[in-house]
Amino acid sequence: MRKTRLNTDRIRAARLAIDPVFLNTPLYSAEALESALGCTVNIKLETANPVRSFKARGTEVIASQLAQNGLRAVVCASAGNLGQALAWSGRRRGLEVTVVASRFAPTTKLDRIRSLGAKLKLVDGAFEMARDRAATFAQEEGIRLVEDSFDIETCEGAATIGLELVEKKPSFDTVLIALGGGALATGVGHVLKAMAPNIEVICVQPLGAPAMTKSWHQRSVVTTDSIDTIADGVAGRRPIPAVLDDLLLVADDAVLVQEASIIAGMRILLDHAGLFVEPSAALGIAAILEDPDRFAGRSVVTIVCGSNVDLAAYYRWVGAVRFR
Amino acid sequence: MRKTRLNTDRIRAARLAIDPVFLNTPLYSAEALESALGCTVNIKLETANPVRSFKARGTEVIASQLAQNGLRAVVCASAGNLGQALAWSGRRRGLEVTVVASRFAPTTKLDRIRSLGAKLKLVDGAFEMARDRAATFAQEEGIRLVEDSFDIETCEGAATIGLELVEKKPSFDTVLIALGGGALATGVGHVLKAMAPNIEVICVQPLGAPAMTKSWHQRSVVTTDSIDTIADGVAGRRPIPAVLDDLLLVADDAVLVQEASIIAGMRILLDHAGLFVEPSAALGIAAILEDPDRFAGRSVVTIVCGSNVDLAAYYRWVGAVRFR
Repeated sequence: MRKTRLNTDRIRAARLAIDPVFLNTPLYSAEALESALGCTVNIKLETANPVRSFKARGTEVIASQLAQNGLRAVVCASAGNLGQALAWSGRRRGLEVTVVASRFAPTTKLDRIRSLGAKLKLVDGAFEMARDRAATFAQEEGIRLVEDSFDIETCEGAATIGLELVEKKPSFDTVLIALGGGALATGVGHVLKAMAPNIEVICVQPLGAPAMTKSWHQRSVVTTDSIDTIADGVAGRRPIPAVLDDLLLVADDAVLVQEASIIAGMRILLDHAGLFVEPSAALGIAAILEDPDRFAGRSVVTIVCGSNVDLAAYYRWVGAVRFR
Repeated sequence: MRKTRLNTDRIRAARLAIDPVFLNTPLYSAEALESALGCTVNIKLETANPVRSFKARGTEVIASQLAQNGLRAVVCASAGNLGQALAWSGRRRGLEVTVVASRFAPTTKLDRIRSLGAKLKLVDGAFEMARDRAATFAQEEGIRLVEDSFDIETCEGAATIGLELVEKKPSFDTVLIALGGGALATGVGHVLKAMAPNIEVICVQPLGAPAMTKSWHQRSVVTTDSIDTIADGVAGRRPIPAVLDDLLLVADDAVLVQEASIIAGMRILLDHAGLFVEPSAALGIAAILEDPDRFAGRSVVTIVCGSNVDLAAYYRWVGAVRFR
């Protein structure tokens, strides 16, 4: 196949830079989901760690490189999870971490970024505004800018999940991956296509934030004007061309799901698997709910990528469960 | 020290019989809990597996022995989690599994036992009645009776958690363990006292089901007349003498906690760690809440031992969170 920007040997090496607390996460069949979904659902759980998302796999790589090179400061834009992860990885290596985020990001994510000792700068707009602001700040200060999904370490860090999947002698035929900027999808997708090419890689994005999925289908970057989804972790309007190029090489499909399906997915994960997750982590279940025939009888992995969600919002969305 | 019934070499060997999906579970610092609790809280997460509790560590050992010896049937009494685990372990080895449980056990636990292919027999009383019924059934049928906490495999299976704790080069000084029949406490306690004796082992039981804790303090078996706790997984009235003897050797303390503290613990785990747990799994947090001075500044491990809880009951107990 044509080559992505990612490198499998570097992905293997990345594991040595990542604190083991983020590695070898649970992978198990949540059998109680089968009756609700009509297929075998294997959970790859990325929430049982100090930052409650997979993002530290990438920030550990970056922060260890910065520390090795004697650099002291770093900035990123974040929807909330990357910022927490970079704060965690930076703090233990003595780095000064600045995170730029939207003031509309979930309170719990912003609070945790502050608690982890990072400087938090808020912008009055969406993620794209934070991205621009972070880039400016990096230039002004002369410090490293971490660009999620563009910086290869964020993709290759996430790709270590792919190694763990293929090393488990997979009994699954499909992997469902939340699609936002593309780090997770290109990372895991790269490893699967390199090492287990028969496994179908399906990216899932909210209908209310469809830029990357539209771009994938059109095979060129499509930007959108607005965002309308509760899945804040994957809400972007401006796909990065180089990331799209990689995604075109490794994804077998990219699908869009409705908000109601995301909420139903969150509810099903709570009800049948005992998992409290943020909206982005329910995208895979949402995809199954929207197209049950496609997945009927198959064995699917869904990466439960984060659990940082405001409790009040969670109850508002998933609240109907209280009347069962 | 005087010797428990457990054997560290057998515990090491037990790991080879246990499906890896139940081993090497996450252990991580849930830093967001610190501000609420005043100490470092390390989560040992035993819920991210096919049966959502630690119990399969023991049933895997038992079922593999039965299969090796050509036996075909097995029965246990269960509050709900052991039954699920034995059903899971037995099914994959072709064993006929019968589970005797109280009809007042959580619906979700009973449903899962049935779904996993076990025969479920319900009794009209509490766990002790199920225990008696299971013993009679085993005798009538001439099949193996699995007695939780008494059968050494249930203790040594649980003890593999202890190996994982000590192998992580512990940065903690205290382990809080839910106390019911005693398999988890004597298992983990045995390993800690054998391999890391300076770590304090504290058992936690509900005030509404205090038999084993009272027995530990009196150094002889105390039975109680009734049970009044939502922590169904640890609700017993008749401690087993041999298990008490082991517990006396490995526990540094045994404390009782109120129902309100268990509920507060469940809420804190949801709110600050994103973990949906059954009441028994919140006993450790409850103990910290009831005696914050004792734990102030310490580094504590709490074993989150199960997440099988009826959603409606969970919302009824923890429901106040919806008004935040």
